[in-house]
Amino acid sequence: MFDTLQFDVTHALPFLPKNWLSSRLDGLTEARNLLEQGNGLGGEFTGWVKLPASYDQAELQRLLQTARIIRDQSEVLIVIGIGGSYLGARAMLELLTSPNYNLFYQKTPQVFFTGNTLSSDALTELLDYVRDKDFSVNVISKSGDTTESSIAFFLFRRLLEEKYGREGARDRIFATTDRESGTLRAMANQEGYATFSVPSSIGGRYSVLTAAGLLPLVVAGLDVQELLAGAAEAMADLRRPGQENPAWQYAAARNALYSAGKGIELLACYEPYLRSFGEWWKQLFGESEGKDGQGVFPASVEFTTDLHSMGQYIQEGVRDLFETVVRFTLPQSSCPLDPKPGDLSGLDFLRGKDLRFVNEQARIGTVLAHVAGGVPNLLLTVPERTPYWAGQLVYFFEYACGLSGYLLGVNPFNQPGVEAYKTNMFALLGKPGHEARRKALLNQNGL
Amino acid sequence: MFDTLQFDVTHALPFLPKNWLSSRLDGLTEARNLLEQGNGLGGEFTGWVKLPASYDQAELQRLLQTARIIRDQSEVLIVIGIGGSYLGARAMLELLTSPNYNLFYQKTPQVFFTGNTLSSDALTELLDYVRDKDFSVNVISKSGDTTESSIAFFLFRRLLEEKYGREGARDRIFATTDRESGTLRAMANQEGYATFSVPSSIGGRYSVLTAAGLLPLVVAGLDVQELLAGAAEAMADLRRPGQENPAWQYAAARNALYSAGKGIELLACYEPYLRSFGEWWKQLFGESEGKDGQGVFPASVEFTTDLHSMGQYIQEGVRDLFETVVRFTLPQSSCPLDPKPGDLSGLDFLRGKDLRFVNEQARIGTVLAHVAGGVPNLLLTVPERTPYWAGQLVYFFEYACGLSGYLLGVNPFNQPGVEAYKTNMFALLGKPGHEARRKALLNQNGL
Repeated sequence: MFDTLQFDVTHALPFLPKNWLSSRLDGLTEARNLLEQGNGLGGEFTGWVKLPASYDQAELQRLLQTARIIRDQSEVLIVIGIGGSYLGARAMLELLTSPNYNLFYQKTPQVFFTGNTLSSDALTELLDYVRDKDFSVNVISKSGDTTESSIAFFLFRRLLEEKYGREGARDRIFATTDRESGTLRAMANQEGYATFSVPSSIGGRYSVLTAAGLLPLVVAGLDVQELLAGAAEAMADLRRPGQENPAWQYAAARNALYSAGKGIELLACYEPYLRSFGEWWKQLFGESEGKDGQGVFPASVEFTTDLHSMGQYIQEGVRDLFETVVRFTLPQSSCPLDPKPGDLSGLDFLRGKDLRFVNEQARIGTVLAHVAGGVPNLLLTVPERTPYWAGQLVYFFEYACGLSGYLLGVNPFNQPGVEAYKTNMFALLGKPGHEARRKALLNQNGL
Repeated sequence: MFDTLQFDVTHALPFLPKNWLSSRLDGLTEARNLLEQGNGLGGEFTGWVKLPASYDQAELQRLLQTARIIRDQSEVLIVIGIGGSYLGARAMLELLTSPNYNLFYQKTPQVFFTGNTLSSDALTELLDYVRDKDFSVNVISKSGDTTESSIAFFLFRRLLEEKYGREGARDRIFATTDRESGTLRAMANQEGYATFSVPSSIGGRYSVLTAAGLLPLVVAGLDVQELLAGAAEAMADLRRPGQENPAWQYAAARNALYSAGKGIELLACYEPYLRSFGEWWKQLFGESEGKDGQGVFPASVEFTTDLHSMGQYIQEGVRDLFETVVRFTLPQSSCPLDPKPGDLSGLDFLRGKDLRFVNEQARIGTVLAHVAGGVPNLLLTVPERTPYWAGQLVYFFEYACGLSGYLLGVNPFNQPGVEAYKTNMFALLGKPGHEARRKALLNQNGL
């Protein structure tokens, strides 16, 4: 019935009450209807639910054309954005090429993600690196008011103008922003930058399938139409109600584990290609659910790598963890092992086996060890590491997150807590409009 | 009195009982004596305590000479090791150069860390990358029996022998292993590889200041004598007893916060250079303390970057977090901001300010926001991002971790839980000696 990604709860069942799913079906039905109708908490930000089916084909064609221009004129693409304005693109880029994309993929421009730090050293070294290279900039910000991104855009725009003049710089700046309002939209209109839009009904952490995520990916040569096709297929599947729905099962299982005292979820994988995906996933779930003193704490690990760092804690530390493993059935590369008899490698027992087989046995062995150690294990199986299946994967987690947030009883689509540090920072920096806060902070803290 | 790194507990005090330190002085005194005398739990693995003062100068000279040979003959150095056999070197490399070392530092060989994964795709792409390059291999394994490292060594050694012949390969393989015993030692002796040793009294996660960590760093052009000098200075300071000892304070504060229900520690920084350091730190504390159903769960974040992903959870999620911030007083690069009046950048309020100042105000604003939100904040201040201070930083955390583990009542120097997955994996792979386990696993799980 559901022929999207496979979700397997078997190795979490020993830790779950029998009614973990049945007792949540009413809540899931309601959550599903809120997502369908966009009338729940934060419903104005549920544009992502139907996005894959309603993608603006004209904009997509323009994205493809623009990417060709960027590729032709650039050795490097500088992507400027923070949080949801870069994590999705970086996750997809590394998942579908390599964490070493900039070194190993030389037919397309290098891609650097910046505008997500206030480190003067990091910005300076990247500016130095591109100074003698041809580069373009994709600045991504819904409002254009985010300090980190604004500063990076200021610095890289200045360098572009030094190198190419104001006219030349204009042809190398591509702004992804709100369709109508905001600082970046105003600047783009005045300066005449090419622009792409993020629908106002889609928040940053749900924006990877908009131009915010797609433009860098097309520049890197990825087939985003396949990505969208996978997401559309998952959408068609997962929006249907039913207890066999894998997104329903995942949302219910993690909610039940949380209720049972498992407060930390580890997204685990057996491929380094998913490490950045873990960062995207942490924002998705952490920012959607971490509010009102609630929420599963999201962490991520890469196995077997981190079995030699975090493995000890997972096996024997405080028993408040559960794991969600993303597994690819079929790695792209075969790697047969054929040590010669008596070659001292200590690998005789692997003769004739393929590394893919070894990695899968490591996964099974780890599941059994962790379950025996008291760590429930959820498993999501993805057939291949391809754009199509990456699209399915993205939509699966987005949709499950929406359900999960409503099950928890929070607004999954706001992030009020992100303002707290910004307000203090603006006050300390003397930004107009923050005078009262500044006075209060300085008085209270003897600064 | 203590003139090493500055530790500031001010912003955690509201969450601590008044006697957080005084009530732990006896325990700290005992822990300190156990570290001094090496007669506590796991005392046979406390060789790191006095390492910086007792460093084998002849070996150091040989390291420097070897690094010159590697640099002369290699475009790429392949470092093969897992867990403590790579995390320290990678942490120091990225801290002291850049996470983009391989792209931005072109005067010294590229350095890739592998042997820490069973991903056939990852190993295949790295093998393909170096196939047409001159490269050398530094294989790091105390025993030589770790499957991940053995497989990578097998694959890269085979490639070296294809490229350079068996004789030529011999000159490009450098083994860091136990002085006397183990599979790798035996192979090195038989094949005649140059070797360096890890003292048997130092476990992987404490080995960054041995040849395991140092050889890759010297190849990358870093001044490891300064690194060792910094560690030696910290050692001289921190081994002295006293409640002003910053390592005592850190160990006591995190122990008290854990007792007060703060079960997750976030190592936070405001520089991307510390992201890999966070992984090293997670192993150090997670593997040392995560046992017997105990231990603070270690996680790491990079700010302000992750304030736009994990920030929401930290501000408003479950209140079981505390933060430890590592701050550098003086970034290397000045980056003055001078937007023209009315340039639409939205940065008028920053005119005349330096990015270093902005980053520091962000840090202060974040501390105040998080403390107000219920997250205690510990602060470790490091003057500069240099090898000397990196050495101090490493020793500080190692020493504090030893104290902290003893305060918790565990053996901070073993990792029994790491065996669980290995045993299962070996059984599933049919490794000789694991037949009984194999039968049990297959029966129990219907595999």
